[in-house]
Amino acid sequence: MHHLHRDKLFSLFDEEENAIVYMKGADLMYRYDTDYEFPFRQESNFWYLTGVNEPDFHLILDLERQEYHLFAPKRDAQYAVWHGRVKTKEQYQQEYNPDHLHYEGKLPQILKELDPQKIYCIDEKQAEFIEEFDRKTSIDLDALPEAVTHCRVFKTDWELDQMREAARVNNIAHRGVLEALEPGKYEYELKAVFDYHQIENGLMQDAYNGIYAAGENSAILHYVENNRQVKDGDLFLIDAGYECNGYASDFTRTYPANGEFTSLQATVYEAVLEAQKQAIEACVPDAKMEDVHILAARVMMQGLKDADIVSGSIDDLMEKDVFALFFPHGLGHFLGMDTHDVGGYPKGVERIERPGVKYLRMRRTLQPGMVLTIEPGLYFVPALLKPALEDDKVSEFLNASKLQDMMSFGGVRIEDNLIITEDGYENITDVPKERDEIEKVMS
Amino acid sequence: MHHLHRDKLFSLFDEEENAIVYMKGADLMYRYDTDYEFPFRQESNFWYLTGVNEPDFHLILDLERQEYHLFAPKRDAQYAVWHGRVKTKEQYQQEYNPDHLHYEGKLPQILKELDPQKIYCIDEKQAEFIEEFDRKTSIDLDALPEAVTHCRVFKTDWELDQMREAARVNNIAHRGVLEALEPGKYEYELKAVFDYHQIENGLMQDAYNGIYAAGENSAILHYVENNRQVKDGDLFLIDAGYECNGYASDFTRTYPANGEFTSLQATVYEAVLEAQKQAIEACVPDAKMEDVHILAARVMMQGLKDADIVSGSIDDLMEKDVFALFFPHGLGHFLGMDTHDVGGYPKGVERIERPGVKYLRMRRTLQPGMVLTIEPGLYFVPALLKPALEDDKVSEFLNASKLQDMMSFGGVRIEDNLIITEDGYENITDVPKERDEIEKVMS
Repeated sequence: MHHLHRDKLFSLFDEEENAIVYMKGADLMYRYDTDYEFPFRQESNFWYLTGVNEPDFHLILDLERQEYHLFAPKRDAQYAVWHGRVKTKEQYQQEYNPDHLHYEGKLPQILKELDPQKIYCIDEKQAEFIEEFDRKTSIDLDALPEAVTHCRVFKTDWELDQMREAARVNNIAHRGVLEALEPGKYEYELKAVFDYHQIENGLMQDAYNGIYAAGENSAILHYVENNRQVKDGDLFLIDAGYECNGYASDFTRTYPANGEFTSLQATVYEAVLEAQKQAIEACVPDAKMEDVHILAARVMMQGLKDADIVSGSIDDLMEKDVFALFFPHGLGHFLGMDTHDVGGYPKGVERIERPGVKYLRMRRTLQPGMVLTIEPGLYFVPALLKPALEDDKVSEFLNASKLQDMMSFGGVRIEDNLIITEDGYENITDVPKERDEIEKVMS
Repeated sequence: MHHLHRDKLFSLFDEEENAIVYMKGADLMYRYDTDYEFPFRQESNFWYLTGVNEPDFHLILDLERQEYHLFAPKRDAQYAVWHGRVKTKEQYQQEYNPDHLHYEGKLPQILKELDPQKIYCIDEKQAEFIEEFDRKTSIDLDALPEAVTHCRVFKTDWELDQMREAARVNNIAHRGVLEALEPGKYEYELKAVFDYHQIENGLMQDAYNGIYAAGENSAILHYVENNRQVKDGDLFLIDAGYECNGYASDFTRTYPANGEFTSLQATVYEAVLEAQKQAIEACVPDAKMEDVHILAARVMMQGLKDADIVSGSIDDLMEKDVFALFFPHGLGHFLGMDTHDVGGYPKGVERIERPGVKYLRMRRTLQPGMVLTIEPGLYFVPALLKPALEDDKVSEFLNASKLQDMMSFGGVRIEDNLIITEDGYENITDVPKERDEIEKVMS
């Protein structure tokens, strides 16, 4: 189905122009100066345009003739001994279906034959590579990244199916962890359960470094040590997902380790859940992501105010950036071939340099075909709260005695994955998030 | 216990010399131009000398005063929000116990104060880094890699304990796979079982990209796709291990997928097993690794000859490199902080450029404290056998009609991990390898 992606890209360039796109696929990556080989995972733009998830390929798109040249590596018998069957040209042709298939040694000759007046490249490094073969042609580094990013933001039906499948397996894996969770286990034992379900279902590439965080660790946004014992009374936060054919899944849930929320945990949890639900309902075509972000933040501030953790008007809590102390990240991000997918800030759109908003990874008007996460959270981070309690400008909004007791409370985050549709959204996450539902599974 | 490693290194340098060792720890690695972060794993030499498995550290060893300077990164509140608790200098001091602890910003000043006449660096890149601060001092790139490698080859008791623990968990994980194996499962389902046992036991870093290979895939030495269904009658080869505190485990087993070896599978299996046993018995102090390699190859050739797969004298099969068609890799390698550990070819020892020997990863005289793998194998690789059957120089040794039928037979490899002791070896692998034992577990 990757021909649809190339067609989209072709449509963004002027076919009158004698120009080509050149792109280099990824090589194997090794750890430092050793022969430890990272599992191969194709670079996302190259995978998007070709469907090739093998090392050492190149592509040329001839924009004038709208033709696709794929360059495959030439392997020998030693390669077959160490790395596997050597595919014939016919096998490559059948699998990837380019208009023209060549071995990579042909690259200089094909370049010469096409004799383009301009070469579009994705970055400086690839431009330097191609300039070794062709020093006279002008290189453009702006149009291609912008065009591929534009294509990737709006998913085709086939892409959405890959994301639904990644989500389907992620639903299974998250439920498995919910069922396995209990005090006394180590965080890594929950990771073992999660990875087991993913790999057993044939997904072998994690979408990111998963977070399995008990107690105060749940307030560390990118916690990855995963080696602490889960204690009775802890919150447990899991943020993890795998890829299906290159497309990521990214869910977060927060559970009470012993199966029952304390009253304080329930209060914070409900504030986040209510914010997430309202934010999800706001995800319809033409909604602005930064507005949804602010909406979720306001709902959460109301929850903390009702719990007497903060005081003052919601407007003041927002304007004076008090909310950023508790919600220091963005509400969500695009999801696709990268977990933090491309396209969040198109040309001309800048980050808003303000605490509580600047970490928002996308400022876009939502449109059908976009896929994004909605993941509000409330955290009690000593490194933020302790200085704030000493700061005259914000301490008046904070209930010091309550907060002093919450320094090891941790945090709550709830994250679903949404596909924006013509009339709203499709939520592809299906893991318990209502309190009674969670407590029932754990009972 | 890493102070013992530094002491060993100090002892290899002249303390009269006003010189220092400079080494830079690893940074986080990202995938291409994305924010996909690989799980952090310290560079082995730096980990060996410091015990630090966190990013962004540096060390200086003052060879004259035999003092250890550790440079830690300075983190801020934003780091605490995203990546975790910020350790104080006191916490770093207590955890890593250097003679002098500094923040990394102090590096230029300490360099200036020490004012060395020579700086030993591990590679060109690190030399370039330190030259930014000190352009006058001469840099030596030879002595340090050689010295650290020498230290790493001979393991301390503490290091051996880490390797025994990695092996203990690997024994559990390999047994788990043996018990789960059956026709109809996919290779990745066996990987799921293996990874589950490792992670459940707290080991979270694989030592290498594991191999789960059914049928003809078992003849691909570094097969990593792991996505084929296991069929009745297949051999199934698993080659996998994880690290404990940076120390690798690396076992291989080959099983009949349906629980019973066919007569032909049994014949090939017994040839490999007999070679492995004889090779292991030969692993005593002062044995030469290349001799053990040849011994194993001869035993396997005798097995293939008895099975009428090859013919001719064993001497001829060896001298004419026929054995390399079936045993195209080395008998074993050093094992330690890297799976293919350092030190296999010390200065002045070169690879033997001969098929069947050139891939041997170590030519050393075995000595107590060394840890190595013993992993003979016999494979039926179409990419090697088909040309050989057409080649007049070797075809006379080959039983063409038998081999034609074995093109999808796959391969057999059996790999244990040995510690060389004063009076022989300690085998830290304990996973069934006798045929009757395997068949009993699977019945």
